Amino acid sequence: MHKSLLQHIEKIVTLESSEIDILESCLSTFTIKKKELILHEGQVCNTLYFILKGCIRQYIINSKGVEQTLQFGIENWWITDYLSYHSQIPSHFYIQAVEKSEVIGLEQEMLESILVQIPKLERYFRVVTQKSYGAAQMRIKFLFTMSAEERYHHFNNLHPEFVQRVPQYMLASYLDFSAEFMSKIRAGKI
Amino acid sequence: MHKSLLQHIEKIVTLESSEIDILESCLSTFTIKKKELILHEGQVCNTLYFILKGCIRQYIINSKGVEQTLQFGIENWWITDYLSYHSQIPSHFYIQAVEKSEVIGLEQEMLESILVQIPKLERYFRVVTQKSYGAAQMRIKFLFTMSAEERYHHFNNLHPEFVQRVPQYMLASYLDFSAEFMSKIRAGKI
Repeated sequence: MHKSLLQHIEKIVTLESSEIDILESCLSTFTIKKKELILHEGQVCNTLYFILKGCIRQYIINSKGVEQTLQFGIENWWITDYLSYHSQIPSHFYIQAVEKSEVIGLEQEMLESILVQIPKLERYFRVVTQKSYGAAQMRIKFLFTMSAEERYHHFNNLHPEFVQRVPQYMLASYLDFSAEFMSKIRAGKI
Repeated sequence: MHKSLLQHIEKIVTLESSEIDILESCLSTFTIKKKELILHEGQVCNTLYFILKGCIRQYIINSKGVEQTLQFGIENWWITDYLSYHSQIPSHFYIQAVEKSEVIGLEQEMLESILVQIPKLERYFRVVTQKSYGAAQMRIKFLFTMSAEERYHHFNNLHPEFVQRVPQYMLASYLDFSAEFMSKIRAGKI
């Protein structure tokens, strides 16, 4: 059930079978319905989510009252609001399932208990977070340096299957252009 | 010499005196001249920097050929290009001293050696990175939701001393508006 998480961990640290047993006994999987919110703005985010199957997004409501997707997560990604999670302050974000999704949810208390029992997982979470942070730094660069058209083609080249998978308006807001621009570029009119 | 790093670490994990000795023996401090580049675009970034004194920025050259500051780091901050650092691929960023700065530089090999000797530091780096990533998520939100004027006042309220400390054109690019807008807003004309 948690095989893909174990495989993901073992790319970074090697677990003993006793450690796998501990981990297995602590993890629980649940299903999130399509469009279901697992975090509302204003709530304290107490959970780290690992996506086993499906697609999750983090979004905000921008100054025009429009949803703006800041991040997508698919299989083998962790997603949360780290600031709210660490500081236990109300979140500024929404987290929602784009598709029906299966996730592992790690509440803060459970994560602490797991890390006490299996300290080498600190390394796993450090490396995963540093890589995600590095990817976020690149995303900011692309927003500042590429034209809307370049951002679309860059993203489409990197993740062709993903462009088909999510609603156009979500992807348009993630790439910071309008849904109208997205329709035109997909129709080859740009 | 490394007192502020030790204090920063001990907010998150407690070190034995033998561990402090190991750490002290591994760390080296160096000075970076004002405007000196410690990372060029195209170089592999092999070092994590902890700022003891001074101010460092990470920037890019945007599509108009203009420097755009993506991140500032001051005392007690870590700064690096995590994607280049982990994947050993050429960096997309520049890292430069805004002021004459004193830093601790941790090359990847040295960090690995320290983490093998003091595994509890994995926790320190995990928490530091998760918090920095959380702050970066908030920064993206502010870029999308606040007007230029709101971004300036928000930043000025949070970090009044910092607004005086860095050149206006750098801060303007960090807040994603023009140096002309910055002059007007500081002169109270907006």
